[in-house]
Amino acid sequence: MSAFYAQHLTVVGLGLMGGSLALALRDCAKTITGVDVGVEAREYALAHGIVDHATDDLREGVSRADVVLLAAPVKAIIAMIEGRLGAYLRSNTLLIDIGSTKADICESMRELPVGIQAIGGHPMTGKEYPGIAYSDADLYKNRPFVLCPSRRTTPATRDRALALVEALGAVPIEMEAARHDRVVAAISHLPYLLSAALVATVSREGETDDAVWRLAAGGFRDMSRLAASDLGMMGDILNTNTRAVATLLAQFRMQLAMMEAALIAQENGKLTDMLRPVREARLAWGQRQEKK
Amino acid sequence: MSAFYAQHLTVVGLGLMGGSLALALRDCAKTITGVDVGVEAREYALAHGIVDHATDDLREGVSRADVVLLAAPVKAIIAMIEGRLGAYLRSNTLLIDIGSTKADICESMRELPVGIQAIGGHPMTGKEYPGIAYSDADLYKNRPFVLCPSRRTTPATRDRALALVEALGAVPIEMEAARHDRVVAAISHLPYLLSAALVATVSREGETDDAVWRLAAGGFRDMSRLAASDLGMMGDILNTNTRAVATLLAQFRMQLAMMEAALIAQENGKLTDMLRPVREARLAWGQRQEKK
Repeated sequence: MSAFYAQHLTVVGLGLMGGSLALALRDCAKTITGVDVGVEAREYALAHGIVDHATDDLREGVSRADVVLLAAPVKAIIAMIEGRLGAYLRSNTLLIDIGSTKADICESMRELPVGIQAIGGHPMTGKEYPGIAYSDADLYKNRPFVLCPSRRTTPATRDRALALVEALGAVPIEMEAARHDRVVAAISHLPYLLSAALVATVSREGETDDAVWRLAAGGFRDMSRLAASDLGMMGDILNTNTRAVATLLAQFRMQLAMMEAALIAQENGKLTDMLRPVREARLAWGQRQEKK
Repeated sequence: MSAFYAQHLTVVGLGLMGGSLALALRDCAKTITGVDVGVEAREYALAHGIVDHATDDLREGVSRADVVLLAAPVKAIIAMIEGRLGAYLRSNTLLIDIGSTKADICESMRELPVGIQAIGGHPMTGKEYPGIAYSDADLYKNRPFVLCPSRRTTPATRDRALALVEALGAVPIEMEAARHDRVVAAISHLPYLLSAALVATVSREGETDDAVWRLAAGGFRDMSRLAASDLGMMGDILNTNTRAVATLLAQFRMQLAMMEAALIAQENGKLTDMLRPVREARLAWGQRQEKK
């Protein structure tokens, strides 16, 4: 595999993720163009040397690029791919999106012109605060970066994408889009809904007893953090992964119901027998994470 | 209110919480005795000057004390109070427990001799790791410390307990035991069960697809942390707060079902309308916490 290099890299979407992509690939690209409708993000990117050129015009931004990265919410990515993007791109351009769900996006790629080398991507990283001002060249370092093939993924596409992931310092993990979406439903989208429903429950208690807010501490802080996620982003994610999320919700409900039944029946030994493997699984995962 | 002072303070249970109580009250007590069945905890406490005396004998440990703090799991506290503890104590001794649920403990206090000044306590603090080696004189500082009256709580008991809480640097919050248990069911025990059921769900996915463990990141880490809580402690808590936990579980189920219905019906506007106030409530709580 040859090292990643772009004559002209274009990043569409100058937020935390897009800005960090540009920073991390700074030395692997002769020219970097940023595309964003927000004038503040463009000016910040130019002022801090994150990009060489910035524009709010998609056509202008991508038409000379040999590598295009789409760093936008899922539905914005789909709208670009199903819109005029394919017509704007040069043949042989490598196109990678970093949307949080992959099946709908990879499906939309099949309508791109045959010459476009398109592949779905999902880096498992982020920060609590959004925006290009928090950009970080190390954001992707040592983090998993999922790659999902589309009908426009040739062997050459795959090689170039793997080289790009390596240039970011990330760990490539290849899988089918449907499998990716099921996995992130379990580890990300289900947890978000649980966090939101927990905060809704506590809020309802808080209407009659403000002490819930005053006494809430570390456990609640951890469990409620995801509920503060960006609504637009989460709306797109849930809307493009409804079936997998519903499946995981059904499984979660079953697990919770079994625990509740043992609790209400005061079958303490049975409840502990359920909770023990759960505790061990979490501790084992935690240890694996620390070793990374 | 006069400042807290003990001629002879006894801490029963030399773990993280008990050790930290002894450290924090070091300058307010002429003598400190620690009671623990574990020889390692006793030796650690003596070697590090956390206590002046240590014993595994409850009677010996508490019989000369004018202040006794019970820092043990809920059922161990109840077993002591319903057992011989009352017979061992001198009249007028201040007795405070720090168990995580309060109704059953405060109820058990009614059988103590009339001369005992007993009050329930629950400091809302802790650390990820248990054990006296993690003891910290500042563990209680600026943290809420709930006080719940029992039938053995006189006005003098209350004053002495408030003085002790102030000596710890904690923030006293007085409320009835039943109200406390409902509040912690919402902010602590329900979150624990959700975390455990989430890890059970993800574990089940992990049996057929190991990628769930490899891709799990920060969101899952936060949402699964409570699932690794100590089983003995959580078992006692759930078993002594079953009704409140079941009530909160029912409310949670309702909130989750409403979100799921909107999700499956693809009513995105409706789902976002549910998620928006939840997000705002969490952000508002986060800001209140930061100001503290």
